[in-house]
Amino acid sequence: MLDLRIANKGDRPRIVVVGAGFGGITAAKGLARFPVDIYLIDRNNYHTFTPLLYQVAAAEIESGQVAYPVRSILRKHDNANFILGDVVAVDFDRQLVKTDELTIYYDYLVLGIGSVSHFFNIPGAEENAYQVKTLDQATALRNQILGCFEHATHELDDIARRRLLTFTIVGGGPTGVEFAGAMIELINGPLRKDFPTLNLREVRVILIEAAATVMGSFASDLQRYTIKRLAKMGVELCLNSKVSRIERGKLLLEDGRSFISETIIWAVGVRANPLAQYWGLRTGRNGMVSVNEYLQAPDHPNVYIVGDLAMIKDDTGPLPMLAPVAIQEGRAVSRNIGRQIVKKEIRPFKYKDPGTLATIGRNAAVAQFTRWKFTGFVAWVLWVFVHLAKIIGFRNRILVLVNWAWDYFFFERAVRLIMPTERRTDNIHRPEQIDLAREKQPSRRD
Amino acid sequence: MLDLRIANKGDRPRIVVVGAGFGGITAAKGLARFPVDIYLIDRNNYHTFTPLLYQVAAAEIESGQVAYPVRSILRKHDNANFILGDVVAVDFDRQLVKTDELTIYYDYLVLGIGSVSHFFNIPGAEENAYQVKTLDQATALRNQILGCFEHATHELDDIARRRLLTFTIVGGGPTGVEFAGAMIELINGPLRKDFPTLNLREVRVILIEAAATVMGSFASDLQRYTIKRLAKMGVELCLNSKVSRIERGKLLLEDGRSFISETIIWAVGVRANPLAQYWGLRTGRNGMVSVNEYLQAPDHPNVYIVGDLAMIKDDTGPLPMLAPVAIQEGRAVSRNIGRQIVKKEIRPFKYKDPGTLATIGRNAAVAQFTRWKFTGFVAWVLWVFVHLAKIIGFRNRILVLVNWAWDYFFFERAVRLIMPTERRTDNIHRPEQIDLAREKQPSRRD
Repeated sequence: MLDLRIANKGDRPRIVVVGAGFGGITAAKGLARFPVDIYLIDRNNYHTFTPLLYQVAAAEIESGQVAYPVRSILRKHDNANFILGDVVAVDFDRQLVKTDELTIYYDYLVLGIGSVSHFFNIPGAEENAYQVKTLDQATALRNQILGCFEHATHELDDIARRRLLTFTIVGGGPTGVEFAGAMIELINGPLRKDFPTLNLREVRVILIEAAATVMGSFASDLQRYTIKRLAKMGVELCLNSKVSRIERGKLLLEDGRSFISETIIWAVGVRANPLAQYWGLRTGRNGMVSVNEYLQAPDHPNVYIVGDLAMIKDDTGPLPMLAPVAIQEGRAVSRNIGRQIVKKEIRPFKYKDPGTLATIGRNAAVAQFTRWKFTGFVAWVLWVFVHLAKIIGFRNRILVLVNWAWDYFFFERAVRLIMPTERRTDNIHRPEQIDLAREKQPSRRD
Repeated sequence: MLDLRIANKGDRPRIVVVGAGFGGITAAKGLARFPVDIYLIDRNNYHTFTPLLYQVAAAEIESGQVAYPVRSILRKHDNANFILGDVVAVDFDRQLVKTDELTIYYDYLVLGIGSVSHFFNIPGAEENAYQVKTLDQATALRNQILGCFEHATHELDDIARRRLLTFTIVGGGPTGVEFAGAMIELINGPLRKDFPTLNLREVRVILIEAAATVMGSFASDLQRYTIKRLAKMGVELCLNSKVSRIERGKLLLEDGRSFISETIIWAVGVRANPLAQYWGLRTGRNGMVSVNEYLQAPDHPNVYIVGDLAMIKDDTGPLPMLAPVAIQEGRAVSRNIGRQIVKKEIRPFKYKDPGTLATIGRNAAVAQFTRWKFTGFVAWVLWVFVHLAKIIGFRNRILVLVNWAWDYFFFERAVRLIMPTERRTDNIHRPEQIDLAREKQPSRRD
């Protein structure tokens, strides 16, 4: 039993890492090579493989397959510890991190608290739209989708039934596109067989995008391919469509059009976790913390920022909020802290773009690398292998592969289950400060 | 869209099956051979493979692997429909079943609404103990167990920490024994590696049994084997110990002894679902409905009872509340309804005991058949294959096998995740009558 409440007892520097996302996990693993004590804090006991969350929502893979226990990841490192808890405050002057249960001193701090959905002050968006940013949200969305189909089977009123069967996705970026594709394949495959009494021509998947194109960050020929492919699959694409308001079961556009839809999914934008600002860090555009070239926070050379929270530019502009960026930042931060400890000069962070991939559906994806671009089957195979390779844990890889193969060969989805979704450990005492901490990952039930 | 609210429209008899447990599912599948319309109602959209629920609680398999979508099971039968809903009342005179959203007429009714935990009026048991009867309960218990370990890592007070690390199971029947074995292997295997800072000698798994032996329904040499095996594994077995009261974190025995334990699991007894009585059925011992030799309810020749709700005797006494009984009853009922429809004489139900199996831990189980008894490795291999064969769905079988093999060869548990547990579909309107229906599967959060 380690008493975390008292200050650093040992001779070794104590490094606290907040957030077990891609950045935090990578930093903690990298730091474990050094003679330091590491404390990784997260509100979940698992790391979430966020790029596949949309597949959880689309009933393609089980929630357990995108979640990996943090303790397993840290297990082989004797000097890396995990603390389950919500960080409620950070005192940068006294170098203390306060969770809902503990106060812990740090010599170095790595903040990887990620991002939350950005609703751009659109009225009703936060209250009435589903999100796909956390595992809870993805599972809740899966329940909602399957529940709508169940209710539609005995809904006699045409309008009410069509409302249940209309799924409106806001945002034509990779998340929105991938989810739209997965939804339409879920409908045309397994749900067609599961709901023989439903007229599936009443089902609509609508993708709303404010810009004139989808996948803004990809090359224009890949955008055109995506648009053609979505149309072919049956997704109704509304470009140049700005959302003005979301009501319960209704989405309104600025041009006056509206969509009656029981399920509205918000896949638009993200902004940095507002906790950073609460904790007193100077934040800029999109709530992010502008770090220096070494990824250090302003005024705090022993505080490093990684992942979606960090604002850093290279020749091509600000780095995107993507897993590869977070992973490379985590690696760089662990190296710089290692150098700081032995009083060596630290090194600037340099991002190497590994390329981006997005899948649209069966045999259809887009891939963009510095020199090459691919679409269709080749890009799709690339996507499959890159994502399989990245999933932490050999066992999860096998299970995800079984699910994908099942889907691919039998047009079948594994997990069409309306399952429990709220965490419950009410026997365990949890203090009140939890409210602030929940801001970290706002969800519909907050 | 079928209008279920109006009376039988077609020429074909309409059969309503309430409950998608072993009895209900088997009856519905058997009935699908006849020229009838079948409506299977359940509050979950999945069938739960209850014999493996304790493995979900012990973080051995994922919840999705013991749950199978009902629509998949019925998919190949054009005349079998599924309705997701809570049955709130049955009108046996007007032949109507009311769910929270629909009223549906039946010509024949099959009731398979199962059983709930029996607390024998022991004060505090229902409020303060965990159960393993539903998937929600199993998932909640897994969260609780893992949460206790997480909290223990930073609990400095010795007594509070030992309380967090004491797991008390009430009931030495197969469920209690299987869960105790799975718990101790979870602790000695994965948790030992996950929590290197904890002193695992502080962890206790206590099994409380009122009788002088465990596994009362098995032969006495199998009972002795089980007792020896549990002791060898490290389970503290308290025989002749009657529980007098359960408080939050404390269990008291009639002889004055008490156990301080954050997690108390109720694996004692079951009684028939009290809904049957609310609906006006004449119930007897343990809330069960005494059916005739054809499994018909008293006074209602078109109402059949299957599974845990049905009270029926053979030469050896009342049939036990077990899956094989429910499955054979479901099959018999479907045949009898088929005969009734064509005005043939119906046939009495005859139970064929296929033998019973219970696993204690790695390479250790007991198996009892009419002529043979096995213990140890042979029984354990039998247990593995019988349960794998029974799990519905080829894909689930593969996934469960992967998890078991993983556990067996690497002493590792797959799913040590503290995951969401409450169903959430709050966007979908649910009327108020739900309260009564929740009685069906009382759980800690009711």
